[in-house]
Formats: sequence, C-alpha cells, structure tokens
Amino acid sequence: MKKFKNFSKWFDEILFNADILDNRYPVKGFAVYKAWGFRIIKNIIEILEERLNETGHIPMLFPVVIPEDAFAKESEHIKGFSSEVFWITHAGDRELDKKLLLRPTSETAIYPMFALWIRSHADLPLKVYQSVAVYRYETKATRPLLRMREFLWNEAHTAHKSWEEAERQVAEAVEIYNSVFKRLGLSYLVLRRPDFDKFAGAVYSIAFDAWNPDGRVNQIGTVHNLGENFAKAFEITYEDLDGSHKNVFQTCYGFGLSRVVAAIIAQHSDDHGLILPPDIAPIQVVIVPILYKGATHEVNAYAREVYEIIKSSGIRVHLDTDEDKTPGEKFYYWEMLGAPVRVEVGPRDQRERKVTLVKRVDLKRIVVPLEDTVTAIKDLFNEIIRVLEERSSSTLKEIIVDAEDQSSLSDIVKLNRRIARVCWCEGVECAEKIREASGGEIRGYRIDVEEKPEKPCIICGREAKRIVYVARAY
Amino acid sequence: MKKFKNFSKWFDEILFNADILDNRYPVKGFAVYKAWGFRIIKNIIEILEERLNETGHIPMLFPVVIPEDAFAKESEHIKGFSSEVFWITHAGDRELDKKLLLRPTSETAIYPMFALWIRSHADLPLKVYQSVAVYRYETKATRPLLRMREFLWNEAHTAHKSWEEAERQVAEAVEIYNSVFKRLGLSYLVLRRPDFDKFAGAVYSIAFDAWNPDGRVNQIGTVHNLGENFAKAFEITYEDLDGSHKNVFQTCYGFGLSRVVAAIIAQHSDDHGLILPPDIAPIQVVIVPILYKGATHEVNAYAREVYEIIKSSGIRVHLDTDEDKTPGEKFYYWEMLGAPVRVEVGPRDQRERKVTLVKRVDLKRIVVPLEDTVTAIKDLFNEIIRVLEERSSSTLKEIIVDAEDQSSLSDIVKLNRRIARVCWCEGVECAEKIREASGGEIRGYRIDVEEKPEKPCIICGREAKRIVYVARAY
Repeated sequence: MKKFKNFSKWFDEILFNADILDNRYPVKGFAVYKAWGFRIIKNIIEILEERLNETGHIPMLFPVVIPEDAFAKESEHIKGFSSEVFWITHAGDRELDKKLLLRPTSETAIYPMFALWIRSHADLPLKVYQSVAVYRYETKATRPLLRMREFLWNEAHTAHKSWEEAERQVAEAVEIYNSVFKRLGLSYLVLRRPDFDKFAGAVYSIAFDAWNPDGRVNQIGTVHNLGENFAKAFEITYEDLDGSHKNVFQTCYGFGLSRVVAAIIAQHSDDHGLILPPDIAPIQVVIVPILYKGATHEVNAYAREVYEIIKSSGIRVHLDTDEDKTPGEKFYYWEMLGAPVRVEVGPRDQRERKVTLVKRVDLKRIVVPLEDTVTAIKDLFNEIIRVLEERSSSTLKEIIVDAEDQSSLSDIVKLNRRIARVCWCEGVECAEKIREASGGEIRGYRIDVEEKPEKPCIICGREAKRIVYVARAY
Repeated sequence: MKKFKNFSKWFDEILFNADILDNRYPVKGFAVYKAWGFRIIKNIIEILEERLNETGHIPMLFPVVIPEDAFAKESEHIKGFSSEVFWITHAGDRELDKKLLLRPTSETAIYPMFALWIRSHADLPLKVYQSVAVYRYETKATRPLLRMREFLWNEAHTAHKSWEEAERQVAEAVEIYNSVFKRLGLSYLVLRRPDFDKFAGAVYSIAFDAWNPDGRVNQIGTVHNLGENFAKAFEITYEDLDGSHKNVFQTCYGFGLSRVVAAIIAQHSDDHGLILPPDIAPIQVVIVPILYKGATHEVNAYAREVYEIIKSSGIRVHLDTDEDKTPGEKFYYWEMLGAPVRVEVGPRDQRERKVTLVKRVDLKRIVVPLEDTVTAIKDLFNEIIRVLEERSSSTLKEIIVDAEDQSSLSDIVKLNRRIARVCWCEGVECAEKIREASGGEIRGYRIDVEEKPEKPCIICGREAKRIVYVARAY
C-alpha cells in the first residue's frame, strides 16, 4: 500500500481529499479542521466524555491563558514547558503588567482553583475534565494532526486522599482510554516511560504509543501520577477526619484528539482513502440508487423507503440523490470519505425488495431482504471493527522486531523503520547509546504484560532490568 | 425580587451557588465554567447547532490565532477591533517574526480560507460555523458572563452569489436565532443598529437585545450583512456561469453563549435560585424519596421504579439517594440549581402507586398515577416554558417606557433603569444629545414590527424618521 511506501504524501492527500483538515492556514503549525474531520472528532469526544461522565468525572472549562506566576510555581513543570510556550505580552497598544501564556497543558490553570475548591476529605476525590485546544511552540518540523502548534485533546485532572487512591485512578484512566481505543480499532503499546522522559512534574508517566506506517510511533494518550508534587507547589490541602491538614495526591491524563484521528487514518485507511470505524463515522451508511431508464421512479421511491427504515433505527444514514454524479462517482467519493457501509439499490433490488450491502473495509457485497437490512448493517458494523482491529494488531506485531545487538538495532529503527524490542540495564549512559545507535528513543516498558529480559543489556552486556521499546516518534 | 433591587449581588451569588462559574481565576475577565454551567452551555450549543446543521451550515474549527497581516486587511474591521486585541509576540524565549493575535471574532481567520475554497458558482452558498471562545481586552469593568475578556459564542460565516441571497441569509439567521431563543423562553428586542454602531466592516447590523433586571440591555446575538466589503479585502471571488469573475456577498452572525446563559439566569430566576428551561436543564427531573421509619425499603424501591420509568422515556432524570441530607435540604439544593420538575415519592405515593410532581417555576404540586408520570412531566415541561416566556415578555413590556421629552428620557434610563422608546430624526448630533441626556445608547429600531414615529424628534423637534430604543448596555 502507498501508505507504507510514502507515508507523508499519502497522509497529506487523504487529509485534503477526505475533507479532514486544510493545512494552508497562514500560520505554521495551525490548521483548519474541516467538516468531515471535525465531525469525526466530535464523535470521538462524545464516546470519551460518556466514559468520563460514567466514572464520576465532571466537565468544566478553564481559561486558555495562564498567568506567568502560576505557570512558574512547579519547578520541574516550568523547566519542561517554558521553551515552547506562546507569550501574550500586549493588549491593544498597552503592555500587560503580568504576561500571560497560552496553555500548553492546564495543570497551572486548574490547580490554583483546586486549592480554592478542596477544603475537606468530603471534597475528595475531585475529577474534572475538558476537551480543548492546547498550544506548544514545536521547534521540530510540524506535521498536520501529528505534530502541531495548536492541537486538540481531552485532559482530565484528579485529586485524592492518598497515594493508593491515586494509583487506582491511574488504573481507571488506563482502562477508560483502552476501552475507547478499542472501539476505534487502534493498536498501540501501553508503556511506562523511562524516568528521564516522564511528564514534567510527574512521579511517573504511562503512554499509549500507536504504530504508524513510517515506523515512528504516535503518542495518542498519556496518564501521569503526580504524587504530591503539584499539591505542594499550589498548596492543595484538605482537612482529614482527624482534623489534620494533608496534601492531596493527584493524577492527570490526556487523550490526544488530533493524534487519535491521525492514528485512525494511518492504521486503517488504504489506497482508496479513509476507512472509518462505524462508531465515529459522521455518516455510517450511504445509500446509492442505481438508476436505469424506465425504473427511475420506482428505484428512487424504494431508496427513500430503505432510507427511512435505516434512519428510524438510529443509524447515521445518508441518501445520495445527487443527479449530477454517476453511481461510480458516488462510490469513489464515499470510499474516499470512508463511510463504513454502502447500500446499493437498483431495479432488481427494488423488484425483489432486497438491498445490496457493501463493506468499505473489503468492498465485499451481500444481498439481504429489506426486512433484514438494519440487523445486517449492525452485524456488518461489528464485523468491520473486528477486521480493522485484527489488521491493525497484526501490523503492530510485524512492526516490532527484537534487536540482538547495536547493529541490528540500527537496522530495525533507522533502515527498516520499525520498532525495536531491546534489553536494557536502565542505565542512563546506555540509554544515550541506544539513542545514538537507533536514531530513536527508548519509549518505555510494557505495563499490560510483564516482560522479563532473557538477555543482557544490548549496550553494556550487564544484567538487563527491562525489555524496552525503541522507536522514532512524532 | 432581589434581582430587581441589587442585580449584581444577586447575580454573583447565583453564579457561585448554582455552580455556573467561578470568577476567582487569577486573570481579570477570565473565569472557570463549572460543571452545571458548562453542561447548560453544551445543551444550548446542541440545540443551536442542530438548527444550523438542518439549514445547511457546516461545522469547522479555525485556529485561535490570526496573523497580523490578515487582521489588517479590512480597514474598518481593524479600526473597530485593534484597541482590544491580545497580542502574542514571543514563543519560548524568541520574538516572533510575525505577531499573532487571539481572535476577537473570526472573519480574518476564516476569509483567507474562503478565498482558497471558493472557485466557482457551484461552491456557493458556503455556510460554516464554529462554537468557540473569543478574546477581547475590554477596558470597561468586566462582569461575569456579561462582559468578559474571554467569552463563548457560536459564529457563522456565509458566502453567496448575490446581495439578494445574502439578504435571504440574514433573514434565515434571524429566524434560527429566534427559534432557539424561543425554546429558552427569552424576551428581547430585535433591532437594526444605527449606522454609527454597526459591526466593523458590515453594511448593516441587526442585534438581539435581551432585557436585564438592572435596565441595561444584554446583546445576546447579532446578524450582519457584510456586502462585498470583506470579499474585496480578501479577494474572495467566484467564476459565474458566463465565465466572469465576481465578488461573493457575505453575512456573518454570532450567538453569545455566555451572554445567553446570563439572560436565562437574569430573566427567569428568582430568590430561590436558578429556574431552567426544560430543554437545556442538565437534569430535567429530580426524584426525592421522602422516607419515614418503617417504609424506607418500600419507598426506596418505589423511587427506583419511578426513576426507571422516567429514564426510559429519554428525560434527563436524577434520583437523589444522598443519605446525609434531609428531603428539605434536597429541595433547597435542587431549587437553587433550577431543576424544572421535582418528583416527591413518599409512603403514601408508594402505597397508592402515585407520584407528587412539583414545578420549580411556581412550586405548585400535583399528584398523578404512576402510569401517567411521563405524560404529566412532558405536559409540565410545556407549561413551564410557556410560563417563563409569559413572565419574561410581560417584564420586557413593563421595562419599555415612551420618552416624551429629554427630561423624561433621563428619568427613564438613568433614574428608573428602563429602556426608553424615543422618536429620532436619525441625525448624528441628536444621537449624541440622546446619549448625553440618557446616559445610554441608541440601540436601534425594531425590524420585527414596523413602528412609525407619530411625534417629532425628541431633541430637535424636526420630523422623526424612526422610533428607536435607548438603554444602557453591557
């Protein structure tokens, strides 16, 4: 497939042709989300926020600007982000007394409010979220959806009475993200990042690295245990049952909306264009009437009947009645947009009161009686997401290769553009050598399965502590 | 009611107590939308966007930053907004080559893209919208929801082949906004603004001015016919059927989400707290079990049964099972939050298989058999929005007072805090004198009804051209 040969070109063409995003906005790293792309994002947000609501998270909206002094409160955090924030220094023709920055992430916007809201143990746990744009002045080359200076995410922030509660919250967050990614058919590694690569201000970080056709991994989500670090900096304390005042324990996690769309496109789509998981397709079923002379009226009426039946079941369906396009042009268009199921309605279907269903995922067709249409479509939706998941996970397996020594490590990551599986002693110097040899980074070790190293460290030959995954990254 | 005696204090207390917004964010004019407030806003967005989708508007998302040169393209527009924009001048420790501003409104972000997208007559009409935050450095005193430096709105932008099409689009926009405001029970004047107060860059502006208990009007929406002004500045042209290239005609309109929430609170609520229109209440019905010794188990089980019946009908219902609160405390809490209908379920209700329904709007109660619950609640919803609309529109009528002369004009606006109805010659000097005498502004003349002045201009005594409305404004 083209996507494995020239990912960048293939990806840019899909973004443009499938009406996902227009990258010609006259500021580098900022782009316009177009109708189809933005409706996909809204559907993803809906699925994610439903899970967050079910698990006691509360929606809120915090300002986009953060005052300089709040941003500077947690020392590791400011070290990690200060080189990439946008600064607002003036308003009208005046210089501001206090500089403001655009949120690169919202800890320092939210935690001053947590300090006001949290008084006693009865206020805990507190779990809030928002789906917003954040801003980072990336100095590396920007890429649409994958690395932008303005990108969309959902971020959640929680406060708890104890480390153990925060640990359970980390587990809940991982479970929530896994459940949403599953509905999108995505494949990825759930990795605990090495200490030198954790989130600025966290005790530790877990990340979801999705595979990409060019071998670079795409971090689609992260979950952090913040311990008491921010609580100390922002003085977020609560009065416990015994009257004592204690720091809260915090977690935060981010779900990369722009990057998840990139992963959906990159993992599932093919040379015909987009292939969308049914749950997030803005249009799940498109009906194309196949008209022949003499039966036009009957077929159109029958197509309308089919439309009403599907629509009343709650499926997002569109009847394409455009008279300026041939059925072939319509097939081409809706394949490009990735509509999961196409319903063809021709004279024979009409006469026999049947419909022809075509899955975008393999373009195979089945004919079913009209009365079975909705059930058949729902079955196809289940089959489609299963096929997408299987294809994607088998590619992930192919992309991961064991590195035996430094030379094979280099071949795997640099030459063959894959993810290397490496035994590592956890030494920082060896990490640096792994980076040099591979041109990639140690992304971390898996937390969903326990993997025991059976060989020594690939660099120093001493006992390895972890099996880690090494790849280039967006 | 308190709201007519000390609006500011009453309003701030409701915002805080009903979990709408926290104004203690450490940047002036920026605030945190809390859970209840943000869920109300999401419901309003859903109603509005549904209407926009039905009428062929397309959702998109444009960047928050606008480059300086695009902003400067339309001369009237930059004159109107340049004194109140936030400027981004640095990123990390670098100075930007090209300054960026935070959108105060998105014409100059969107129209460079329109110039790329619109090629031929077949691309028209183009109608796009986004629900976003915008940024204006207000130099007047900021007020939560009513006048903020960051506020939420929905903005739509359209392009057409002719002036007449643009005029029809203006009418459609007015109709859409009216239909949404009606579902919220709001009362307001639909006014064509005087020329000296139109939107910067527009041919003319129409605005929706909602009444407020303190007599200031609250502009909750605006619709502008932009003519060819922006098309010329941004070179947005299309090839017509005859091969000629022509400028598009444009309109834009904004629906003030933050200000609509302010209007809902200000017009409908009372001394007990919020009163929400059912269509946007995050929780439409709250069930409070009234427990007595001996019947606790039966009543709780019955309350659960009532809950399941209401929930399965699609109504947003909550069963308040909090054991640490008395029923009276729950009544108080849910009245503060403005839940439209309360269902009380006590031992007698349980024994007789009935429910007691209480409307927040007047706290009157009715008892209905269990099997009629859903129908009765839906009837109450209709009654509630009718009552809210009637109350609000009768207050609007009371608030508007005819000004006979300059002295009465001053009394009406300054002293009695009302809206004055004034005959005006359309002269700019007289407008200035009206402003001086009243301490308010000429807001414009009604477009929903034709009002012919029967008296001379209140200032100069010459023939009056218009009946205009004069008020202080947020």
